[in-house]
Amino acid sequence: MTQLRQDPATREWVIVAAERARRPDQFQSLQKQRPPEPPHDPKCPFCPGNESLAPPEIFSIKDEKGGWRVRVVPNKFPALAPAGNLVRREEHDFFRWTDGVGHHEVIIETPVHNSCLALLPEDHVIDVVRTYRERYRAMRHTPNVAIVVIFRNHGEKAGTSLRHPHSQLVAVPVVPNNMRQLFEEATRYYDDNNSCVHCDIAAKELDAKVRLIESTDGYAAFNPFASTVPFETWIMPLAFRASFADTTDEEIAGFAKVLRRTLRRLHFGLGDPDYNFVIHAAPIVDEDEKYFTWHLRIVPRLTTRAGFEIGSGIYITTAVPEETAAFLREVKMPEG
Amino acid sequence: MTQLRQDPATREWVIVAAERARRPDQFQSLQKQRPPEPPHDPKCPFCPGNESLAPPEIFSIKDEKGGWRVRVVPNKFPALAPAGNLVRREEHDFFRWTDGVGHHEVIIETPVHNSCLALLPEDHVIDVVRTYRERYRAMRHTPNVAIVVIFRNHGEKAGTSLRHPHSQLVAVPVVPNNMRQLFEEATRYYDDNNSCVHCDIAAKELDAKVRLIESTDGYAAFNPFASTVPFETWIMPLAFRASFADTTDEEIAGFAKVLRRTLRRLHFGLGDPDYNFVIHAAPIVDEDEKYFTWHLRIVPRLTTRAGFEIGSGIYITTAVPEETAAFLREVKMPEG
Repeated sequence: MTQLRQDPATREWVIVAAERARRPDQFQSLQKQRPPEPPHDPKCPFCPGNESLAPPEIFSIKDEKGGWRVRVVPNKFPALAPAGNLVRREEHDFFRWTDGVGHHEVIIETPVHNSCLALLPEDHVIDVVRTYRERYRAMRHTPNVAIVVIFRNHGEKAGTSLRHPHSQLVAVPVVPNNMRQLFEEATRYYDDNNSCVHCDIAAKELDAKVRLIESTDGYAAFNPFASTVPFETWIMPLAFRASFADTTDEEIAGFAKVLRRTLRRLHFGLGDPDYNFVIHAAPIVDEDEKYFTWHLRIVPRLTTRAGFEIGSGIYITTAVPEETAAFLREVKMPEG
Repeated sequence: MTQLRQDPATREWVIVAAERARRPDQFQSLQKQRPPEPPHDPKCPFCPGNESLAPPEIFSIKDEKGGWRVRVVPNKFPALAPAGNLVRREEHDFFRWTDGVGHHEVIIETPVHNSCLALLPEDHVIDVVRTYRERYRAMRHTPNVAIVVIFRNHGEKAGTSLRHPHSQLVAVPVVPNNMRQLFEEATRYYDDNNSCVHCDIAAKELDAKVRLIESTDGYAAFNPFASTVPFETWIMPLAFRASFADTTDEEIAGFAKVLRRTLRRLHFGLGDPDYNFVIHAAPIVDEDEKYFTWHLRIVPRLTTRAGFEIGSGIYITTAVPEETAAFLREVKMPEG
């Protein structure tokens, strides 16, 4: 018999289909080997020496020799850009639209073309995450920014076209429906319980242990009770923290360590699967509320969303979160 | 400059990135040729003669010789099944779950293993759509059914594993968040305008013409103003009709004709792209309200949903709906 499980944060249901489920180690074989790439590609706009192929730098962290370790540039083909205005207009007196005003940045994570976030040294991942925070901080005080979305697409199935390791930031001038709904549910939960739903989820997962991957450095990593896809993983602060921007240097270091270890578990345990991750944060104007703790959500792309999911919004997952968490806890990772 | 466009039905925004956009005919090259398959596969559970490989038949439409033209069987690995109860339980006093109670059926569209819906004769597609309605009618009076989702997965990128042409029906015991939201927005729209938002969308698209593919037989087919993906296509009744179950035989025939022609435009225009389609209908208890007209949504899988979409719910589309509609209007289709 399958189970319907409800996500406490969104109140959305998922179907956990244990009968259809694969064992966690069976997902390994679904991965295709990535074609090898050189450490430097003369045509790659993100490789050192090719800086002129990308728009002018916004931010960087330098190494001792004056080169960059992490570098931020505007996206050359931005989804949203600063010019334009947000006055709502109507086509045919009915269809509402506005200019695509906003910001779209690329965070180039390393000069090394063929590396990946899971394989970078710890201090380098800390620099990447610190860059996320610096750009988030810059965006929250920028006019017309309603939410800041920081995300990463790893591999072709996750929608990336450029192999050079990078993340992206999009600053959006409207609050999307599903973010509004997530925040509204969190507000309602706070009204009922006088506590933040994300803090309570993290505390319950810590206590239940069965879906926990690790809890160290002030963060819990776990496969959520109502995972939408096999090996979905959340990383959540163990103390309330509304805004990602307010994260201290020490907290950033702790988060980067847990993020790196979690990505290494996926990398070595499942053979470098394609994945997306995204930092979920409250809308900028609501960052001072007690309702919502920022968190990171990793969505491995081992399965395909089909018509039922698209139509109903209910996911059918073919792996049991308790089993995937047990698998990830035991992954052997090389030192370093 | 890109545009933010709002879907009038969901109020969700999409980004139409014209600068990044491909011309409609450039999507053709993204298709991979499907490996050839025989008209009959001795191992396929949906092929005639192999009926014993599938669970017992629920419904069928016969041909003159006593064989079946269309056949419905329970899914052998159901996402939801009739046994169990819907009492909510809590794991760890917190995580809500219930048995996966419901129905999951497979609608085998034709005895011919290597055919597809776009290539079946018109009278056969009418039989398929009539079968959808018959099963929808049966489900609406079944206990514990909150919504009925009828959908089709065409091709690997659309999440299908079995090549034999089939659709699916899942009867769900809860109203999913996004269906509830869709219905609530439609209710609010009705309060404000005294009309159904879907009827108004269809009327406006008919009038604007720029995104219209065709309007015949009582239905409009168009690429919606706020398409989430390239070539997203909606087929909508031109007269208000709350429930798909109440569609008359004549209306079913009209719908099947437009559906078939639309699938043929995609098939011949884009080289048989992978796609999902889903029938959006009101929750069963709300089927008598005037707020919501059922409609069909086709989602071609020519692009990949990435981290920004997963995180924000806002889609970035790299095709302009006015251009894709112009392209689809002009597709040359063989007679028949």
